[in-house]
Amino acid sequence: MDTYEEKTVTGETLYEGKVITLRVEEVELPDGKRTARELIRHPGAVAILAITSEGKLVFVEQYRKALERSLIEIPAGKIDAGEAPEVTAIRELEEETGYGAREFIFIQSFATSPGFADEVIHLYLARDLYPIDNPAAGDEDEFINIMEVSLAEAEEMMTNGSIFDAKTAFAVFYAKNLLNT
Amino acid sequence: MDTYEEKTVTGETLYEGKVITLRVEEVELPDGKRTARELIRHPGAVAILAITSEGKLVFVEQYRKALERSLIEIPAGKIDAGEAPEVTAIRELEEETGYGAREFIFIQSFATSPGFADEVIHLYLARDLYPIDNPAAGDEDEFINIMEVSLAEAEEMMTNGSIFDAKTAFAVFYAKNLLNT
Repeated sequence: MDTYEEKTVTGETLYEGKVITLRVEEVELPDGKRTARELIRHPGAVAILAITSEGKLVFVEQYRKALERSLIEIPAGKIDAGEAPEVTAIRELEEETGYGAREFIFIQSFATSPGFADEVIHLYLARDLYPIDNPAAGDEDEFINIMEVSLAEAEEMMTNGSIFDAKTAFAVFYAKNLLNT
Repeated sequence: MDTYEEKTVTGETLYEGKVITLRVEEVELPDGKRTARELIRHPGAVAILAITSEGKLVFVEQYRKALERSLIEIPAGKIDAGEAPEVTAIRELEEETGYGAREFIFIQSFATSPGFADEVIHLYLARDLYPIDNPAAGDEDEFINIMEVSLAEAEEMMTNGSIFDAKTAFAVFYAKNLLNT
C-alpha cells in the first residue's frame, strides 16, 4: 500500500488548539527531493445516518463558521479523547436529535480531506429510533435545528445545493440504495 | 439559511502556508456567549469521476502524508489562484491520468470538513475519454499510480476498506446509480 512513502526529515508543531493541531513537516520524496507538507491533526469524528420508522432522514442545520453559512448535515461530532467511535455516535445522536436507536450499524470510515488533514469520519446507520425522555444536552456552543425529510426531498436537496456537505451527500446515496432495494 | 450566525468579535491569522491558512476567531454565539473557532482556509479543489469507454473507473493511488498511508482516490487537485474549477478539473485529469474527455459535466460541490475548514470540492463527471499524446506533467512532488477498475471492483474496495476517502466513496455511489440505470 505504501508505495511512494514520504519520510519525515524534520517537523514542527506550530499550533495546538482545542480541536486541531498544525504541523509543518519537511519530507523526502521518492526521488530524493524534499518538500514541505502542511498537516492538520484532528481527533476524528462520527456521523450518523438516522432513519425514522416513516423512512425519513434526520438532518441537523447549524452555522459553520469556517464557511460563514449554515449547512444541513447528518448528525455528527468529534470523538472525545479515549472514546470508542460507536459510543460517540450514540452520544451525538442523542445530544443532537434526542433520538436513541435500537439498531446501530457501522457503515464505513473515510478520510475527509486527505490532502492536508488526518480527519477520519466513522459513519453509522441508526434505525428503529425512539425519542429519549430527557436527552443529554449537546455542547454549549452548538445551536442546531432538527429536520426530518423524505428520501425524495433529500435527493432534491442534493440537486438544488441545499445539501452541501460531503458526508451527508454520501449518506443520502447510501439511504437511496438501502431504501430502494 | 443563516439562523444562529456566529459574528466574529476578533480574529488572528496564525499561519499562512503554501496551501492552508490558519485563523483563530472569537465569535459571538446566538445566546450572546463567546467561543473560539479554529479555522482553516483552503483554496478549494476539484475531483473527477472519470469513466472509460469500457465502463471502468479511473483511480489514482498516492501517498497522503497527513494520514501516513497511501490512498486510492479519484483524480483531484487544488484550484490555482484565479482558475475556474472546470479548468482545474480538465487540467488535473490530464496531469494525473493522461486522459482528455469529450464529455465533461459538473456533478455537485460539497464542503469536506465544515467543522474546521472551508475546503469545497467541485466534482465532475468525465466520459468519452481519450489518451492525450503528450500530457502535461503534474506537480513535481506528486507520485501517482493509475488504476482502472470495474464498478463491481470499486464496490468491493468500498466494502473492504481499500477506498478510504469521502469524495471517492461518493463518486463510486454516483457511478453505481449512473451505470445501473
